[in-house]
Amino acid sequence: MRLATYGDDSIDGFLVVVSQDQTRAADARSVAPNLLAALRRWSQVEAPLRALADDLEKDGADHAFAFDPKRCLAPLPRAPQWCDGSAFLNHGLLMDVAFNKPPIPDFDTIPVMYQGASDDFLGSHADVPFVSEADGIDFEGEFGVVVDDVSMATCAEDTGKHVRLLVQINDWSLRALGAHELRTGFGFLQAKPSTSFAPIAVTPDELGDAWRDGRLDMVLHVWLNGQLVGAASGREMAFSFPELIAHAARTRRLTAGTIIGSGTVSNADRSVGSSCLAEVRAIEMIDHGAARMPFLKFGDRVTMQARFADGRAGPFGSIDQTVVRAERRAPGTAG
Amino acid sequence: MRLATYGDDSIDGFLVVVSQDQTRAADARSVAPNLLAALRRWSQVEAPLRALADDLEKDGADHAFAFDPKRCLAPLPRAPQWCDGSAFLNHGLLMDVAFNKPPIPDFDTIPVMYQGASDDFLGSHADVPFVSEADGIDFEGEFGVVVDDVSMATCAEDTGKHVRLLVQINDWSLRALGAHELRTGFGFLQAKPSTSFAPIAVTPDELGDAWRDGRLDMVLHVWLNGQLVGAASGREMAFSFPELIAHAARTRRLTAGTIIGSGTVSNADRSVGSSCLAEVRAIEMIDHGAARMPFLKFGDRVTMQARFADGRAGPFGSIDQTVVRAERRAPGTAG
Repeated sequence: MRLATYGDDSIDGFLVVVSQDQTRAADARSVAPNLLAALRRWSQVEAPLRALADDLEKDGADHAFAFDPKRCLAPLPRAPQWCDGSAFLNHGLLMDVAFNKPPIPDFDTIPVMYQGASDDFLGSHADVPFVSEADGIDFEGEFGVVVDDVSMATCAEDTGKHVRLLVQINDWSLRALGAHELRTGFGFLQAKPSTSFAPIAVTPDELGDAWRDGRLDMVLHVWLNGQLVGAASGREMAFSFPELIAHAARTRRLTAGTIIGSGTVSNADRSVGSSCLAEVRAIEMIDHGAARMPFLKFGDRVTMQARFADGRAGPFGSIDQTVVRAERRAPGTAG
Repeated sequence: MRLATYGDDSIDGFLVVVSQDQTRAADARSVAPNLLAALRRWSQVEAPLRALADDLEKDGADHAFAFDPKRCLAPLPRAPQWCDGSAFLNHGLLMDVAFNKPPIPDFDTIPVMYQGASDDFLGSHADVPFVSEADGIDFEGEFGVVVDDVSMATCAEDTGKHVRLLVQINDWSLRALGAHELRTGFGFLQAKPSTSFAPIAVTPDELGDAWRDGRLDMVLHVWLNGQLVGAASGREMAFSFPELIAHAARTRRLTAGTIIGSGTVSNADRSVGSSCLAEVRAIEMIDHGAARMPFLKFGDRVTMQARFADGRAGPFGSIDQTVVRAERRAPGTAG
């Protein structure tokens, strides 16, 4: 089942079911007003949502319309929590080079994870506002899972059953600010502006065998201004999503709709390229003694699409965004 | 104006206005369903809420009832963001001792701040569940502000006008986990379970001159099992709340209801005691070469009350909580 969120005058938007060919959608408000509400009572809404999806395939759904990913908000415009791991160890090792720092203690046995803001996610085609090019604007291509309610201290053997949806993410990052925040030990805050999501969140069955061992065996294609930067596989996660969920839930409940991220998709095989510019620059530092690739400028366009190992497009749709200069709005008009 | 949240079957509870003597309250649902909704349209709801508060004082409010802080949820059971600073430099310096680490770079010129989970706050009298005493269970007495919508990159000169409410906080911490998370650079996640709040959120005018220079000139009394541990003043913040808000908003919008914390209240004058056990232990390390005060055990009771400089009780009410062993609940019953 493929789900998306259209904008209206509410914070959470409204829920739509998307057809397999992604050309049509059906208004799902008769089942649940929005995706966050659906996740809170998933056991009650899953069957009627699947029935609606079946009707849509048979061209028998009421309130069906042409699906336009440009009209989509993030599947969850706000989420209870956004906890982003760093499960691709190759990424972590290259980032140590990028930030000129020693390795993170126990990085290969204890997941590394930061708490992100989750109140203002961006849709797949929204312009992405930044204050200054000097902040080191970068993208990070990732995968993520959306869970329902997870009790405190649920172990990794039991967390997998709480995975309700899979999502594709661009975790925008500001490298010039992140270097300082890493050194404070308090983690990323200014370095992590609003995160963006591909338009369609999918149930695990949509991926078939590409969802196995708690990982996505899919290739995340990333383009900058039309040039392919990376096509790394999601299967190289050192920690599975169930392990990342258990890490996040160790001392707290996760309420339904919480999103757990993989961290930047990154492979040991350098020929596949990178899912962020900081990695490209780290490899340049290793190979040439200095970084050559600049960070992003206003007007740059970043596109991401996950594909199956055989090259077929995945079900998430594409992220296709332009970096823009933030406009100072009058106080009270934000949000 | 004094506002609180009573529990019902919704996530956000429902809004009540509390009388000045804190013995009575009035159901405010005729104005706004809950505090989060009220903050989103503060300019429309403030006047009718103040009118209701006036009626309550004159014993003329409909739907008035005896106020019971034990029935209160956190004023905001969930918030869009929870960004907690560390604005009392004395605390930071002692924590460096506690965690046996070098000072944070630029700690006296750039605010230090972490992103906390904001989906599952605890009320002032709720038991506080933890998995293990070995995690180093500790309290942190703090003050905080609640803002309305703040645009990206709003400067500190302009953020003060977005302060709508002041709150009193216990930022529960797990020190054994925090030491590792600090070293990763990715910040606190497992080390910061659900945060607790005193029952009453107040508009700045309730504090009179005690709210000035963007700081609270109030003394936070903290007791462990009835023994006073600390009575430190809020006025020693090295960064004001407007400066902390500007730090949080540097690269992102803050949506209405976002909470910005002061960090642990801490004074250079050691005779006033401490607002967390880690500080007590750090001072013991400095004075005696080793920590003597243990972290918390199941059954320990932590009480906090903010008072004005002249000793009068502040308007927030008290936090009075007991540390308990977390029960493993069946998956799906959390939340």
